[in-house]
Amino acid sequence: MAQKPSIPKGTRDFSPIEVAKRNFIIDTIKKQFQLFGFQPIETPSFENSDTLMGKYGEEGDRLIFKILNSGDYLRKVDDALYASKNSTKMTSKISEKALRYDLTVPFARYVVQHQNEIDFPFKRYQIQPVWRADRPQKGRFREFYQCDADVVGSKSLWQEVDFIHLYDKVFTKLNLSGVTIKMNNRKILSGIAEVIGAKDKLIDFTVALDKLDKIGEEGVKKEMLEKGISESAIEKVKPLFGFTGTTQEKLDELKSLLTSSEEGLQGVEELQFIINAIENIPLQTANLDLDVTLARGLNYYTGAIFEVAAPDTVKMGSIGGGGRYDDLTGIFGLKDVSGVGISFGLDRIYLVLEELNLFPDTVAPVTKALFINFGDAEALYCLKTINLFRSEGILTELYPDNAKMKKQMSYANKKGIPFVILAGTTEMNNETFTVKDMQSGMQKEMNFEELKAVLQ
Amino acid sequence: MAQKPSIPKGTRDFSPIEVAKRNFIIDTIKKQFQLFGFQPIETPSFENSDTLMGKYGEEGDRLIFKILNSGDYLRKVDDALYASKNSTKMTSKISEKALRYDLTVPFARYVVQHQNEIDFPFKRYQIQPVWRADRPQKGRFREFYQCDADVVGSKSLWQEVDFIHLYDKVFTKLNLSGVTIKMNNRKILSGIAEVIGAKDKLIDFTVALDKLDKIGEEGVKKEMLEKGISESAIEKVKPLFGFTGTTQEKLDELKSLLTSSEEGLQGVEELQFIINAIENIPLQTANLDLDVTLARGLNYYTGAIFEVAAPDTVKMGSIGGGGRYDDLTGIFGLKDVSGVGISFGLDRIYLVLEELNLFPDTVAPVTKALFINFGDAEALYCLKTINLFRSEGILTELYPDNAKMKKQMSYANKKGIPFVILAGTTEMNNETFTVKDMQSGMQKEMNFEELKAVLQ
Repeated sequence: MAQKPSIPKGTRDFSPIEVAKRNFIIDTIKKQFQLFGFQPIETPSFENSDTLMGKYGEEGDRLIFKILNSGDYLRKVDDALYASKNSTKMTSKISEKALRYDLTVPFARYVVQHQNEIDFPFKRYQIQPVWRADRPQKGRFREFYQCDADVVGSKSLWQEVDFIHLYDKVFTKLNLSGVTIKMNNRKILSGIAEVIGAKDKLIDFTVALDKLDKIGEEGVKKEMLEKGISESAIEKVKPLFGFTGTTQEKLDELKSLLTSSEEGLQGVEELQFIINAIENIPLQTANLDLDVTLARGLNYYTGAIFEVAAPDTVKMGSIGGGGRYDDLTGIFGLKDVSGVGISFGLDRIYLVLEELNLFPDTVAPVTKALFINFGDAEALYCLKTINLFRSEGILTELYPDNAKMKKQMSYANKKGIPFVILAGTTEMNNETFTVKDMQSGMQKEMNFEELKAVLQ
Repeated sequence: MAQKPSIPKGTRDFSPIEVAKRNFIIDTIKKQFQLFGFQPIETPSFENSDTLMGKYGEEGDRLIFKILNSGDYLRKVDDALYASKNSTKMTSKISEKALRYDLTVPFARYVVQHQNEIDFPFKRYQIQPVWRADRPQKGRFREFYQCDADVVGSKSLWQEVDFIHLYDKVFTKLNLSGVTIKMNNRKILSGIAEVIGAKDKLIDFTVALDKLDKIGEEGVKKEMLEKGISESAIEKVKPLFGFTGTTQEKLDELKSLLTSSEEGLQGVEELQFIINAIENIPLQTANLDLDVTLARGLNYYTGAIFEVAAPDTVKMGSIGGGGRYDDLTGIFGLKDVSGVGISFGLDRIYLVLEELNLFPDTVAPVTKALFINFGDAEALYCLKTINLFRSEGILTELYPDNAKMKKQMSYANKKGIPFVILAGTTEMNNETFTVKDMQSGMQKEMNFEELKAVLQ
């Protein structure tokens, strides 16, 4: 009985043109990763469950895809537990492996496991799929690629500078001018919380501030008051609500705002260092902006925080992000390894390039000519030539069957092949080819060298 | 509590050099796939279970990795089934998705699902990981890549010819001369069975004949007799036991052996066609051999059967294989779509290239120069230059920290970086760089253009 074929929700088939476009993005990113000195690693698609569980919070644990043990997996479950019919408790008994949820935790595991083979600072990149049992929606999938670059083993701010240049280079090479690299620093957020006398309100404060462009100054103030942040505290950080001007002006404002917070001032100093470097080595097409409302992964980052926004002309969430984390590998027992990294959002970058029509026409290799199949002798004559073209890197094809002319021409048409080559007895005797330009309809008989020149 | 990190058995971490070597193989294969007109597709890592189950036999079903349903997956299991505590029956209730076991079944599913978007003949390639819950052993992993190219929708033997040339081109480009492409045809095996009057003994006969080089002529005869193949039948196919000579001589022998089998003669004719074509368009470095003992996937292939053996100097199983199958998509309801395809064994090819020391030295991008970090002003001076080099595609790096000279030099040494660049106040004033050749130890002061010439 034939099944009606389908794929699981939240997953995707990629057609040839989609693969080509995705690879255009991936190859561009990969090339710049390499030019910036990052080296590739790959880790297994599934990890031992205890490597992943407990690393992403309760919600994360729930979204991790678990793999059922092989064989008679129920045999190992003791009767009391089995009788409870409790899915959560059962899981750890019948599943020991899980699909990777991101590339960061497997990277941390890799660094600890291979620490004796690694020369630090270790600059690695990793481009692999990850899986999340999230509710699928527009732009959110259950299988998607992450493209990460991280350095571990150095606290140098030159890394942050490099990552900004890396973002700029990649988006420039992707023809995507005008992205904004938003930058903040965890220490500045902590400093602000300190200044307003509410270190414990850091997250409430940040969450509220983050809504500034949506709910406006009054809305933000209201939310802060509701969260127990005092009127006088809010008054102190009033400048943040109208935070405009050049990056340097913003930085000066922050400096005066944070005079009483050592940590805050350190954050200002770090940002100043990075901004100075970028002023000396300017970006090609990206803008660098200081955004004090930026707080992604607050629990995670300890220094710089980055996020990349698509050009204003496109409505799209962030297309990249990252930051510095001071203790990535601690969860696996290797302390004091500082790291900083960034990530590219492949799926969203794809949508942006598509919307702005920025994929090059040459993104997929195009068959330059289809040789018509008039029968075995003619086909052999053609295939000899095709083989020579292949050695020269010129993509040509023989229609496999001696089918009706109309069918063969229609195949060339549908695939957008610009030239069709006809070689019958006359051409074979003359050692020539009749070349038909599919656009103009013009035909011409020519020899191999002439044909080669046309196809190149 | 720190966990001792490890990965599941049968899986692998790939270090930078291993990724680079694997990508060298994959990129070489991919490039030839494209030059031969194949287009890439990608399918999800997991499929609906009913897409995969029942397609690989009972053993295959057992080896498929199943993914546990999300949420309270036990709730849906009815009490009677639950009480049985039967793992096999439980699986389909608590797992609806499974990791892909090969690329062929997902490809068949893809063709059927997208048949209205596809122009036939459809030439696709696919290079993605697959997963099998097999017992891990040397060279056998639970996660490994398959590299497949297939054409569906044409019965033309020119495809078979193309695949032989494709194998030859890829192995030539991989610097691996002297592989043997072994070829057979299912119709010849059927023909032999017909001739010996034992169509039902086809598999027994083939399995025995396959052991010829291990157990010799007498051993094979003994096994055939034991399987109920008659003495006179064996006598008829005696020529197969001493089957030597050129491909053409073997073919002639087969032709006279199979005169009474229409199907067998058709197989001979197909092989003759392919051999003629290859004689007219010779292979570059591979050998083509007719091997009547070749029967891989007998239940599956209906015409040509291919297998590639590494050069004799290396002990290794097959490094590639494939063949023609007349009804790939029938399982999903699309009848009469003939296909033919080949596969490259990435892991084994890797081992062969490693053993024969055939990986190019340039397989991984190498950092050409490390700029020593003498402090922020010097680092900025260096990074300006590094940024220019990056735009030219020259890989150079700044040591991120202003660490002791010895530590920075040792980093360059360990990573095999050939040049170290020293730029202090003098060089900054002169707009020069002191370049140290790490091999000879020689130093020279030079300007940007001179440095660029050295690094290029």
